[in-house]
Amino acid sequence: MKQVAILGVGQTPVRDNWNMGVHQLAVQAGRAALVDADVERPGVIYVGNMTADGLNEQTHLGTKVADHLGLWGVEAMRIEAACGSAGSAMRQGVLAVASGMVDSALVIGVEKMLDTKGKETTAAMSTAADNDYEVVHGISFVALNALVMQRYMHEYGYTRDDFAPFPINAHANGAKNPNALFRKPISKKVYDNARMISDPVSLFDASPVCDGAAAVLLVAADKAPDAVKVAGSAIATDTLAVHDRPDPVWLTAGEKSAAAAYAQAGMTPDDIDLFELHDAFSIMAALSLEACGFAERGRGVRLGQDGSILPSGRIPICSMGGLKARGHPVGATGLYQIVEATLQLRGEADEAQLDGIKTALTQNIGGSGATIAAHILTINS
Amino acid sequence: MKQVAILGVGQTPVRDNWNMGVHQLAVQAGRAALVDADVERPGVIYVGNMTADGLNEQTHLGTKVADHLGLWGVEAMRIEAACGSAGSAMRQGVLAVASGMVDSALVIGVEKMLDTKGKETTAAMSTAADNDYEVVHGISFVALNALVMQRYMHEYGYTRDDFAPFPINAHANGAKNPNALFRKPISKKVYDNARMISDPVSLFDASPVCDGAAAVLLVAADKAPDAVKVAGSAIATDTLAVHDRPDPVWLTAGEKSAAAAYAQAGMTPDDIDLFELHDAFSIMAALSLEACGFAERGRGVRLGQDGSILPSGRIPICSMGGLKARGHPVGATGLYQIVEATLQLRGEADEAQLDGIKTALTQNIGGSGATIAAHILTINS
Repeated sequence: MKQVAILGVGQTPVRDNWNMGVHQLAVQAGRAALVDADVERPGVIYVGNMTADGLNEQTHLGTKVADHLGLWGVEAMRIEAACGSAGSAMRQGVLAVASGMVDSALVIGVEKMLDTKGKETTAAMSTAADNDYEVVHGISFVALNALVMQRYMHEYGYTRDDFAPFPINAHANGAKNPNALFRKPISKKVYDNARMISDPVSLFDASPVCDGAAAVLLVAADKAPDAVKVAGSAIATDTLAVHDRPDPVWLTAGEKSAAAAYAQAGMTPDDIDLFELHDAFSIMAALSLEACGFAERGRGVRLGQDGSILPSGRIPICSMGGLKARGHPVGATGLYQIVEATLQLRGEADEAQLDGIKTALTQNIGGSGATIAAHILTINS
Repeated sequence: MKQVAILGVGQTPVRDNWNMGVHQLAVQAGRAALVDADVERPGVIYVGNMTADGLNEQTHLGTKVADHLGLWGVEAMRIEAACGSAGSAMRQGVLAVASGMVDSALVIGVEKMLDTKGKETTAAMSTAADNDYEVVHGISFVALNALVMQRYMHEYGYTRDDFAPFPINAHANGAKNPNALFRKPISKKVYDNARMISDPVSLFDASPVCDGAAAVLLVAADKAPDAVKVAGSAIATDTLAVHDRPDPVWLTAGEKSAAAAYAQAGMTPDDIDLFELHDAFSIMAALSLEACGFAERGRGVRLGQDGSILPSGRIPICSMGGLKARGHPVGATGLYQIVEATLQLRGEADEAQLDGIKTALTQNIGGSGATIAAHILTINS
């Protein structure tokens, strides 16, 4: 098996991109990654996307993006695993290059959630849950996460107040990222007064609906000795329905995928300098910190309270805003995480740059923890 | 790179499966492939599917299928390339096993096109074409293929009558396959009198709307020396919109993907004993025979007329009914082709069994030739 490296990265700003179609967003990010890598024609194109057929009336998006990139003939396909689509596409890019059957892989994540001709984004998001056993009861995706957060608070004796450090950190970091959707810090008072969406999930405990695309160009590591390396790559799944899990406040798929990635990289949580986690909801940030070994069970929120998650802390998270402030264009998010971690490792994160970052873990979640992709990235010292 | 073998196959009958959900169809085929291979837990699950979100209100289908197979934890995702979804999923299974990062891959193709709560199947199918440049004009997928067939007839001087051998052969072969949707031969008179759908595409020039799932279990070939081998695996793409192609009656992506698969296998068209092609429309059968090197440009229909495509002919096609008679559950078709070719190579095709089959080519098409997957299968003599 060949080692894989990230030779190029690209992204669009996360915005309400009313003037661009879903394929145009993907083309912009993909083209930027090709230019950054100085590669004209990749061996394969994977496009991570969740809702193009539901919201944009377009299946066959992989080939459409290849076409509109002008890369006629290149192998292409779409990879879908709900909000974990981009992390899953990344994993396919790694496997394809590792197989030796392609020289390079262009991996793009894209989502267009706004300007969808009146189609219902909330309904489209709910398709990530089990349609037969969850959605049939009328539950939305926010409501599912509210149930998990409620249970966690009950189980471990927390209040909503204890989660405030997660969005406050995310928005402070997003203010330093010109590609973030929200570029304004929020105070504790703003968090306290936020509108309740689905108790106890308030406006600042949930990520926004938005448009965006991010991309990487992967090659065999021996062809790019100075590039950021993929030291670990793994995906694990869990039951789609949250109620089928023995412990609904533990991310089993997160634990398994992180363990596999650590094993591949020969690392432990102690070796990780930066953790780009999937804070679609504040509760998910807490659960991710626990599943990946940074906190004991039921103590994830404490890493917010004691400052560990800050840029200056032991394990910075959401260094460029995370899902909450950079934004969560669902099928693109897993690649925004990898692009941002790559920029941090390269020392190219500008105002958001962290000091002394040599290893980063990214964790992209589909559904309420049903599909979790973990990637460990490193750079030569 | 490791060689890959097909250790197990499974399929559901192609039917109007009113009593089963999309995930249940996939589970039935996937379970059958695992049993056939005598494997309990695959390393990864790829689910090829086109319309689950559009028609079944379920994204995240890869993980849902893993869940309902009882394979909690196993890596899983959905692969989508319109009607080429299953061929693309097969390609990912081959790459994953070839990479050495997984021991085995369960690859399932599934589609549920009926009983979709009033959702429009014709509209869902049109999403395979370019939404911005083709569908916006109101064209359906049948109409697109009618334009291509009309152009081919004009270009090379054929009439609708010249295409009759394709559906007649398909239905004769389907009658020998208990899993086929249509199991009754048709006469030339029936073809002649068929209702016109979109001139010149009549009822028997177009494949039916139906439900079904097919699956294979892939392992490294050195672990299964007697199993059917994947000697070639390739995908190529073309412009999504037919009108963007310099020659709309030539499958450039079919030529490229077949050439790549031939090169991997060290073969030419002369070495192929069976060609499971993508006869979603009669015109596509003719174009596929040309693109893969079995006929000169503009002479594909002649292989129907001279009997070459019959079970007794030089290059049998659609040996178990093809898309027209076995049926075309769109995101499953590419794997029905591979399952059927495997059964032929194993000598397990029962009444449909061909004599002396040692190599087979399968060709799965997404859109009107925009994504084409080619696989060459062989068995030890």
